[in-house]
Parts: sequence; C-alpha cells; structure tokens
Amino acid sequence: MTTAIRSEFDQGIALTPHPDGAGRYDGELGAGWRIGGGVNGGLLLAFAGHALSLAHTARPESAGHTDPVSISGYYLSSAVPGPATVHTEVIRTGRTLSTGTASLVQGGTERLRVVASHGDLAALDGEVRTTAAAPQLPPPEQCIGVEHAPRELLDQAALLERFDLRLDPATVGWALGQPSGAGRIQGWFRLADGREPDPLLLLLVADALPPVTFDLGMPGWAPTVELTVHLRAKPAAGWLRVVHATRNLAGGYFEEDAEVWDSTGRLVAQSRQLARVPR
Amino acid sequence: MTTAIRSEFDQGIALTPHPDGAGRYDGELGAGWRIGGGVNGGLLLAFAGHALSLAHTARPESAGHTDPVSISGYYLSSAVPGPATVHTEVIRTGRTLSTGTASLVQGGTERLRVVASHGDLAALDGEVRTTAAAPQLPPPEQCIGVEHAPRELLDQAALLERFDLRLDPATVGWALGQPSGAGRIQGWFRLADGREPDPLLLLLVADALPPVTFDLGMPGWAPTVELTVHLRAKPAAGWLRVVHATRNLAGGYFEEDAEVWDSTGRLVAQSRQLARVPR
Repeated sequence: MTTAIRSEFDQGIALTPHPDGAGRYDGELGAGWRIGGGVNGGLLLAFAGHALSLAHTARPESAGHTDPVSISGYYLSSAVPGPATVHTEVIRTGRTLSTGTASLVQGGTERLRVVASHGDLAALDGEVRTTAAAPQLPPPEQCIGVEHAPRELLDQAALLERFDLRLDPATVGWALGQPSGAGRIQGWFRLADGREPDPLLLLLVADALPPVTFDLGMPGWAPTVELTVHLRAKPAAGWLRVVHATRNLAGGYFEEDAEVWDSTGRLVAQSRQLARVPR
Repeated sequence: MTTAIRSEFDQGIALTPHPDGAGRYDGELGAGWRIGGGVNGGLLLAFAGHALSLAHTARPESAGHTDPVSISGYYLSSAVPGPATVHTEVIRTGRTLSTGTASLVQGGTERLRVVASHGDLAALDGEVRTTAAAPQLPPPEQCIGVEHAPRELLDQAALLERFDLRLDPATVGWALGQPSGAGRIQGWFRLADGREPDPLLLLLVADALPPVTFDLGMPGWAPTVELTVHLRAKPAAGWLRVVHATRNLAGGYFEEDAEVWDSTGRLVAQSRQLARVPR
C-alpha cells in the first residue's frame, strides 16, 4: 500500500464540498502562498476556479466541464492564510461551456468574486493558426533562479519557495538596480516539488512572476483589481515559459499581460490583469 | 423651451430604475444595434455597465463612482431587440472603486453576466508612462467608409448604420477577397449622429469593428464568450482610433484585443475578448 503524497499546489487548492450540498466548498489558504501583505492572487483564482470545476463536474449535464476556459476575478480585499469558503452558483450549462460565479469568503468578508466558463480543453478541435511566437530564452541553467532574489523580496514572498522560477538575465536588471524600462519580465517556470502543469496551475502561473513594474523601476507589490485568464490548451508536462509585459502605465493603474507556453511550444494561456501602481 | 434630442447611443442604453428599488433597471434593446443573429455584445456591455453606474451613483458612499474602470462580461445567450432588464448587486464599495455584478435578462433568460469595478476616471492621477504607440492611420477621408462594405455584411449588421467607421485601406483586403492573414483591422470611429465619446461608449467601441477573423479569411460572425474592457482615461471629444488584433486562433477559439485611442493620442481603453471561430 502506498501513501499518496499530495503536491503543495494540490494541497493549496484542496476543497471539501459542504454537506449542505448548496455549492459551498471549504478549504484552507496556506501561509506558503503569501506575497506582500496577502495570499497570491493567482492561487486565489485557482482556488475559486477549482470550486467551480467541482460544481460543474458534480452535475451530470456538465460532468465533462472540468477546465476553466475563461475565468475573470475581481479582487475585493486581501486574503490571509487560514480557512476560506467558496460559494459557487451555476448560471448556465451549455453543450461545450458551463458558466458560473464563485465568491471566495473568509470570516464573512469577501476576498474575490469570479465569473468563469468551464469546458473540456482536451475536446477542442486541433486547429492552430497562431502568429504569436514563443519567447526566446536562454536555457534554464543559464537563467537566474529565485535563490538569487534580494532577501527583502524573498521575505515578502513565501510563494517563491514553491516555485522553480528561472528568469531571463536580460529582464532582471531591476534586481541589480538597473531596470530596463521596457516593462517585461520573462522566464522558465515549474513547481519546486515537480508537480506537472495542468489548467488550474496555469491560473497561478498567470500571476506568479514579480510585477512588471519592477522592470520600470517601481519596486513594491502591485494590488490586482481584475485578472482574466483564457486557457487555450492543456499544457504538456515539463517547463513552462512565461512572459509578463505592460504597455500602458497611466493614472495609477497598469495592465499586465501574461502568456504561458508549454514544453511543446504551444501557447496554453493568455491573461491580462489591471493592477494598481505600487506606492 | 428646448426639446432634448437624445443620441441614438444614449437611447440605446437608456434605463429606468424599477420602483421596487432593489437594483433593477429596465430598458429596451433597439433593433438598430443588431449584428448577425443578435444584439451587439459591446452595446450589451454598455447597457449593463450603465445600470451599475446608476446603482453606484444612487448611493451616497459611492456617488462619484460613475465610470466603469474594469468590466467583464460573460455572454450566455443571444440578445434580441425588445425589453431587457438588468439586475444589479453591489458587492463592495471602496474609496476609489465600487464593485458590483449585473445580470441582463430578457423574458426570464439571462443574456449576459457582468462583474465590474466602477470609479471616477476624472480623479485619476495624471501620470502617463506608456510604451504603447497609437496606430498610424491615413486621415479619415482616405479611409474606407462602411458604405463601401459588401451588401451582405450591411444586411446583417444594422449597427453599422449608427457608426461613422473608416477602416484603414491596408486592413480591408478581406472585403475584396484578399485577407492579409495578419489578423488586424484598424480604423477611425465616431457615432454617425455626432454624439461625443464617453466611458460607456468605449464599451461599445471595444466590440464595434468587424471580427479580426475576417482578416484571416474566415467570414461570419464570431460569438463572444467573454469580453473585458479596461477604461484607462476619459476620452476627449473627436475621432477615436481603434485597433483590433488577434495572435492566437486555436482549438476553435481566438482572442481579440482592442485598443481605443482618443483624439489627443491617449490610450483610453484596452480590451480583450475570447470568441468562437466562425463556422
């Protein structure tokens, strides 16, 4: 008999259906996913997206709708380590997509409101006509591991210990006091414990890199207002490549676009968030 | 005494608060905003965003939160011309942003579910550090007016008659059977009746151009799954420049990014939608 060892990420988004059966799921936000003053927004999105996945697959008419295809989260207040509940509501079940809302609550205070459409990424047709090109990165062993991050960054970002994140040396000048000003950070990503990527992990990855504002010479954490992720294919096993970029910092806000590419060179996720400029 | 002449757009998104006061607003979706088999998704987003604007401004604690700053819509079924009701719920009122949901319903069937954060765009700080560049377009009089669109397109898109839309000749090869394959359509936009742009109009503009799939040689309307618009500044009076582009058509879906620039050269809106590839 073997004992199942659950990965840190699976533990991080683990949920138990509430016995009342009314679409409520209970879990625990782990201290290992902290960043700045709260729990990472990507982890919260995966937590809520997981609850909706459970809600859809529990119903015969949407049993195959496991994967978030499009998911939008509005961040209402900082989540903290500890118990958290997700209240889900299924709005509509279609042939290929089921849409629902999720509300992530801690101690009566809502942290995150989500709307999402779930489907079956494995069932999508195979046509690919993309003009997007994967980022050119030096091999992982020539990139900069998180262990080289400034101490004050690591102290504020427990979640970095969950990652094997290797940043392109061309986009880490900010760590040496020389931000490029281009508003772009890119690198290789995998989980430190070797757990392979799947659609829910991509929700975390979309918000896993340091804020692109670091590369504009603006240190500090950037609170997310809204984050939408489109999942475009199931990711293959292996390293992911991630690009974060911004083009428009104005009026106290900036957008951060992320692309995630899998080891086969497929663009598996595209995301955009609106965030507040760090003070 | 003068009679107020309401613009077509203001008429299109006009709403009456329901006497019960429970956040319900009633309006009418006009036949003039039809496209393909339904009512244009941008108009629906403006309709629902308007309802939330009314809901926030009706409350003293969020009276200044008139403008959608980030708004996400999930499209559930095709809207048709006729009466429509928006049920709003305020989730959280903060100092600078108020967040709420809106559900657009016709005859008991939900068409669109929205989550949005509203604020006061005029109150944003004035800093602009953008690397995004406005599209280079020939002057409007050298661009291609909608009156030159193929008849079968105009017949399916009553809303084009509401627009003074002038497309860059470099991106209209598809109208002559010669799509560029680049997945990009751009041009000048204003309302035909001269009504000047404001934040709610930008929600329409984000979904106003023909689908970028036309430029990939795929005619037909592309149903929106999800559309998120970030409003980044109040638009100045005058012509808007709009760019629609896609980089990743795969698995039966594609993303469509829009940028809207105002007459002062300011990037006033950024949007992304996930849509289904036309059959």
